Amino acid sequence: MELFNVLTVQQARQTLSKHVIRREEETVPLLEGLNRVLSRDIVSLEEVPGFDRSTMDGYAVRARDIFGAAESLPAYVNIAGEVIMGREAAGFLEPGQAWAIPTGGMLPAGADAVVMVEYTEELDEKTIGITRPVAPGENVVRRGEDVMAGLTILTAGHRLRPQDLGLLAAVGVTRVPVLMPLKVGILSTGDELTEPNQPVPPGKVRDINSYALYGQVLEAGGMPRLYGIVEDDFDTLRNTMVQALAENDMILISGGSSVGTRDVTARVIDTLGKPGVLFHGMAIKPGKPSIGAMVDGKAVFGLPGHPVSAMVVFNLLARPFIESLDISGDLRKFPLRAVMTRNVHSATGRDDFLRVVLRRGEDGTLLAEPVLGKSGLISTMVKADGVAHLPLNKEGVEAGEWVDVWLF
Amino acid sequence: MELFNVLTVQQARQTLSKHVIRREEETVPLLEGLNRVLSRDIVSLEEVPGFDRSTMDGYAVRARDIFGAAESLPAYVNIAGEVIMGREAAGFLEPGQAWAIPTGGMLPAGADAVVMVEYTEELDEKTIGITRPVAPGENVVRRGEDVMAGLTILTAGHRLRPQDLGLLAAVGVTRVPVLMPLKVGILSTGDELTEPNQPVPPGKVRDINSYALYGQVLEAGGMPRLYGIVEDDFDTLRNTMVQALAENDMILISGGSSVGTRDVTARVIDTLGKPGVLFHGMAIKPGKPSIGAMVDGKAVFGLPGHPVSAMVVFNLLARPFIESLDISGDLRKFPLRAVMTRNVHSATGRDDFLRVVLRRGEDGTLLAEPVLGKSGLISTMVKADGVAHLPLNKEGVEAGEWVDVWLF
Repeated sequence: MELFNVLTVQQARQTLSKHVIRREEETVPLLEGLNRVLSRDIVSLEEVPGFDRSTMDGYAVRARDIFGAAESLPAYVNIAGEVIMGREAAGFLEPGQAWAIPTGGMLPAGADAVVMVEYTEELDEKTIGITRPVAPGENVVRRGEDVMAGLTILTAGHRLRPQDLGLLAAVGVTRVPVLMPLKVGILSTGDELTEPNQPVPPGKVRDINSYALYGQVLEAGGMPRLYGIVEDDFDTLRNTMVQALAENDMILISGGSSVGTRDVTARVIDTLGKPGVLFHGMAIKPGKPSIGAMVDGKAVFGLPGHPVSAMVVFNLLARPFIESLDISGDLRKFPLRAVMTRNVHSATGRDDFLRVVLRRGEDGTLLAEPVLGKSGLISTMVKADGVAHLPLNKEGVEAGEWVDVWLF
Repeated sequence: MELFNVLTVQQARQTLSKHVIRREEETVPLLEGLNRVLSRDIVSLEEVPGFDRSTMDGYAVRARDIFGAAESLPAYVNIAGEVIMGREAAGFLEPGQAWAIPTGGMLPAGADAVVMVEYTEELDEKTIGITRPVAPGENVVRRGEDVMAGLTILTAGHRLRPQDLGLLAAVGVTRVPVLMPLKVGILSTGDELTEPNQPVPPGKVRDINSYALYGQVLEAGGMPRLYGIVEDDFDTLRNTMVQALAENDMILISGGSSVGTRDVTARVIDTLGKPGVLFHGMAIKPGKPSIGAMVDGKAVFGLPGHPVSAMVVFNLLARPFIESLDISGDLRKFPLRAVMTRNVHSATGRDDFLRVVLRRGEDGTLLAEPVLGKSGLISTMVKADGVAHLPLNKEGVEAGEWVDVWLF
C-alpha cells in the first residue's frame, strides 16, 4: 500500500490549524446557551455584588470599635438599626453602633465588618456585648468582589458550562452571542455496506460509522446530517459531495477501505475546490489511511472504514473544529492519566491509540487494561472506556508506566 | 446554627439510594438515542459479521496448502476465483486454490486464511507463488467475532455513547427503548434575589442558581423547568411546590441562606407527602445546609444559596438520579487524578470540595492548584476547571498528594 504525503498526527493538526472554517454567529437566550461557543468576549457592565454583603447572621460594625473585645472584656455597642434582607440599608452606622444583619444582607454605610451572632450577648434591647474582635472586611463579600465592572468575564471561543450560565445571569446578560453550530455532512462509502434498517444480504455488513460519527458530531456540539451509503464511483461520489458541501460546513466520508476507493475519494476532493487534499495518510495506528482536506473554506475528512479508526481520527482532526478548540495545541485539555497494567508494544514513528478498560487501584490510581481485538470490531470500542495514547517517539509502554487516556 | 439529622455525604447518598423515582420508558429512533439511558437490555439477534471476512487485500487460501512457503521456496496455487466486495462468495475453494479477495470481502467456503498481496508473486494469469505461510484465521475477522447472536450487548441503565449507536446499527437495532428524561423543576428562594433580565435594586443580587442548575440538569440529560424566584413565605412556597411537584419528577429549591428560610423549606416539604425530609444538613464543605427528601416517589432537594455549594451538592445528590447511576457507589466513575500543588487544610469528619485550576506538569501529570475565594462567588467556579475531593477522614492534603478531581 503506497500512501503519499503521510504526516504525523501533530503535523496533520498543525497543517489543519492554518485553515479556518467560516462560521456565522447568532444570539440566543441564556437558557439555550449551554455547550454553545461564544463568538465574542463578554464584558460585565456591572459589579457583583453591587454592595458590601454579609456572609453571616450577626451584627454589622466598625471593626475598630470592637478592637480587643474578649470573653472577659466584651465590647459594648448600641443596636442602632436592622438590615432587612433584599432592601437598601438606609442610614449610616455611627461609631459605637451595631446593626443587626442577616446572611446576604447589605452592610450600612460606615460598617466594615460583621460579627457572627455566636460572639455576641444581648445586654438589653438596645445594647450587645461582643466577645471577639473582627478584622475589617471579615464576614463580608465586598462590592465587586465576585465581578468587577468593565471586566472581560468570558472570552470568545469559550464553550459555555453550567457555571458560565450562572455568571452571565449574575451580571444580567440574558442573551449571548454564539457561533452557529458547525453543520456536518456524513457519508459512508463501500460496496459492502447496507443500511441498519434492512436485512443483511450475504457478503454485506451494516453501516456502523455513519451512526457512531453522528453521535460524535452531536456530542461535540455540531449538527450532523446523514447522506447514507454512497457508491464507490467517481461521479456518484462527486455528485453527493457537491450536494453535501453546499449544505454543510464539514464533510466526513468514511469507509472505502480498499486502496482503489481511497484514491477515488482523494481525486474527487481535489475537483471540489482549493486547496484540496492537504495530507493523505497519517503515521497513526489505527487510522493510517486518513485524508485531510480544505475546500473553499470548508473541511473534508476521509476517515478509515474501521469503526474504531474512524472514531479516533474524528476526535483528532474533526472534533477540534466543531468545538472551536485550538487544533495545533494539546490533543485534549485534561486527559485522564492512568497506569498501564501490561507491557504494550508500539512502533516508534507513529502515534498509537489503544482501547483500554479503566478501573481504580487500591490507592485510587486509575489503571488502564488493554482491550484486545481488531480495530474493525465496534464491540471493542463499546467494551472500552477510552483510548490510551502511546506517543510518536515511544516504542510502546511498560506495565506501570503512565499514559494519557481519553474517555470515549 | 443548629442542624438536625446531619449525615455524611456517603450516608446521605446511601439513604437516597433506598428510594427510586418512578420513570416511564419510550422508544426513540437510533439517531435520537445519544446520551439517553436504556430502559431494557439489548440482545443481538444477529451475528456480526455474518461471514468470515478478510482484513487485507490479497488471496483467500487454505492455510495448510501453503505451510512452509518461503521466499526461496514459494508455494504455488491456482487462482480459481475472485471475491467481489459486498457479494456472496459463491462456490467452494478447493485444495490448492486461491481466490483474489479485497479488504472486507467474504471468504469463500473452504478458505480459512488470507495472504496479503505483498507476499505473493504472479506467475501467470492462473497461478501465483506465495512467499510466506499464514496461520488458520490469519487476516480474517471470523463470523460472529464482533458480536455473537443471542448476546446481551448493552444493559438497562446504560447511557448511550457514540460507539453504542454504532453497535446498535451493526446489529440492525434502529429503535431503542429508553427512560423518559427526568423532569426537574427549579425554584429559587430568597428575598434578596431579582431576575437577571431586571435592573438590580440596592440590596438585591440576581438569581444565579436557577441558571447554573438549569445547565447542570440539561448536561445530566434531564429536562429542566424554571419556576423563578419564590417568596420565603410558607404558603407561597407551598403553593409553588405543589404545582412544581405535579409537573416534575424532581424539585430543586436553592437559596434561603438564613436559618429561618431553611426551616420554612423543610416544613413545607414535610407537608407535601411521604416520607418527607430524609436529612437536613450534610457533613460537607461547601454545602452544609442541604436537604434531601422524597415525596411520594419524587425527589426534592434543598440546595444551599451559595452558587458553588449548590452546584457541588447538585452533583452529589441530584445528578445520579437524572443520569440513572447507582447513587450508593463511587461519587464519579472515573474522576481525574491530580497532584495538589499546595498544602490545604480541611477538618476531619466532613467531605471537602475544593475548587481547583488544573495544569499539566512536565512529565504529563495533572497538577491541581486551589482557587481561593468564598463559595458565594460564582466567578471562582468559572475560573476553576473542577473541584478536588478531600475525603471525610483526612485532615487536609499536603502538596504532592494525589486527589480526585471532577471537572465542572
